[in-house]
Amino acid sequence: MPDYVLLIHGGAGQLPANFLTAEREQEYTQQLSQVLNKGKQLLMAGAKAEQVAVEAVALLENCSLFNAGCGSVLTHAGTFELDAALMLGNRRSGAVMAVKQCKNPIIAAQKVLYNSVHNTLAGPEADSWLLTQGVEQAPQDYFLTEHRLQQLREARQKQQVQLDHADNGEVQQLLNSPLDESPMGTVGAVVLDIHGELAAATSTGGVTNQLPGRVGDSPIIGAGTLADQRSCAISGTGVGEYFIRYTVAADIHYRMLFKGQSLAEAAEVVVNQQLPAGSGGVIAVDSHGQWTMPFNTSHMFRGVVTADQLKAFIGKDESLI
Amino acid sequence: MPDYVLLIHGGAGQLPANFLTAEREQEYTQQLSQVLNKGKQLLMAGAKAEQVAVEAVALLENCSLFNAGCGSVLTHAGTFELDAALMLGNRRSGAVMAVKQCKNPIIAAQKVLYNSVHNTLAGPEADSWLLTQGVEQAPQDYFLTEHRLQQLREARQKQQVQLDHADNGEVQQLLNSPLDESPMGTVGAVVLDIHGELAAATSTGGVTNQLPGRVGDSPIIGAGTLADQRSCAISGTGVGEYFIRYTVAADIHYRMLFKGQSLAEAAEVVVNQQLPAGSGGVIAVDSHGQWTMPFNTSHMFRGVVTADQLKAFIGKDESLI
Repeated sequence: MPDYVLLIHGGAGQLPANFLTAEREQEYTQQLSQVLNKGKQLLMAGAKAEQVAVEAVALLENCSLFNAGCGSVLTHAGTFELDAALMLGNRRSGAVMAVKQCKNPIIAAQKVLYNSVHNTLAGPEADSWLLTQGVEQAPQDYFLTEHRLQQLREARQKQQVQLDHADNGEVQQLLNSPLDESPMGTVGAVVLDIHGELAAATSTGGVTNQLPGRVGDSPIIGAGTLADQRSCAISGTGVGEYFIRYTVAADIHYRMLFKGQSLAEAAEVVVNQQLPAGSGGVIAVDSHGQWTMPFNTSHMFRGVVTADQLKAFIGKDESLI
Repeated sequence: MPDYVLLIHGGAGQLPANFLTAEREQEYTQQLSQVLNKGKQLLMAGAKAEQVAVEAVALLENCSLFNAGCGSVLTHAGTFELDAALMLGNRRSGAVMAVKQCKNPIIAAQKVLYNSVHNTLAGPEADSWLLTQGVEQAPQDYFLTEHRLQQLREARQKQQVQLDHADNGEVQQLLNSPLDESPMGTVGAVVLDIHGELAAATSTGGVTNQLPGRVGDSPIIGAGTLADQRSCAISGTGVGEYFIRYTVAADIHYRMLFKGQSLAEAAEVVVNQQLPAGSGGVIAVDSHGQWTMPFNTSHMFRGVVTADQLKAFIGKDESLI
């Protein structure tokens, strides 16, 4: 059996103590496992990394448990704005930022990669172009869940002052609260297929109560998403502002390329020494099939498929290491 | 006299043979020199890198010769969409993408850094927020020049088919024409001030005839803009799609950090070995005052100020090396 690896994540963050009931845990584990199973079928049938990454992320977008596609968090204005990126091991990439009308932003990102001369399209103009490309549309209502609406109400009550009157750029201090609000749920997939090719895909609804127009790390190559045949495929999740300023995915990639660090070592250093505690995690697989899923939060919804195993995780799990 | 360095660029590209008349050459050199002189005054008076970078880029935005602010190129829809980013050596950053109403996008990026909890705001929502922050507005007409309108007309005639019917992601092939159209003129500044602090700023109107909503490398940290006290400050110019997929600024930064390469070596390798010939250049200064301005195009509008010199350049100039 040729080697293949699929890793997925459904977001990293601090889960409130009362959030993770046995029922919820089962629900998340079940959803992640379904996506892993679908990915395994595709990989065993010889599907390419790109297809598997896009299909896995699209399934997670379609599941209302996660903060991407249906189930996304709301902006301060009560709207949904979606970001996504796809990158292949040959460094071709496509991304969409702050789009409002795509059912599956990851499919929109793939369309940008193939059907435009650009890497990245943003905002309502991106939506207009995607419409001409036959990308499936969805009204804003499609993304709405009662859970996220409640989160926005709470975030507005607690954070409005911070968001409206922040007078410095200290993201750490100001984003403590959104982090506590558990906007976790960005989704991603990284894949090594049986042909040896890598791909990374990430999709998100952003942060609860964010300023409309805010763009996080997910659609930014080198921040939340990166793939390179010479090193690895990476998808991040957490406080995007940190992932951007620390060019997290690029840091891991160049540690492997320039310092000869293993994927596990590179990702560990970046997640646990570069990023502030509580800010997020990554999933990553290298071109030899080594993989890792470090995070510095209390939880990261995640899962792995290889020829040997298929398993979903939520909290810390030593058996993984 | 304490060491200080200011580098500016006004874009890299292939200038048509008949473009650079003696008169035009003088005009560009004069404008660049004015900005250098203003920067020199500020630096000698003890101004911080951030202030000098922002003021230099704002002056270049205000000059209709360059493709940023007034004088920007037009999108396929005949509109102006502006991108800019500011990054400080402490890795704090602010960026705006695809905004339409800011007179000076670099000042808007600075406002995002200080007045929002986010790094990056995009599209009309960004414009709306910037209005609440008192950022100076400008109508779309303000950005218009006859020269750029003519470029759009020509680009539409020659490239419409490519833009509308591109069926693959091979940027190289498809962007050959826009490159030839000389959309060059992205502007940027990198600064080491007398306090030893670094800053990088980049601003652009994008590529002539681009799809509306297209975001290039300028506002993307690690692609067209980066600053880090441990290494250097970088501002790029060229075909943004390449700078994004090759994470150009991050590549230079991590070569210095992880491989111990000098700034000159790192920038040279990335510009002349990683990027395709004809795709662009960078200006960069490190925290010790070493600086470099490599480009792989026929021309790059650029200039340097140190305690010893003040000089503007357009074509290749061996005296620089």
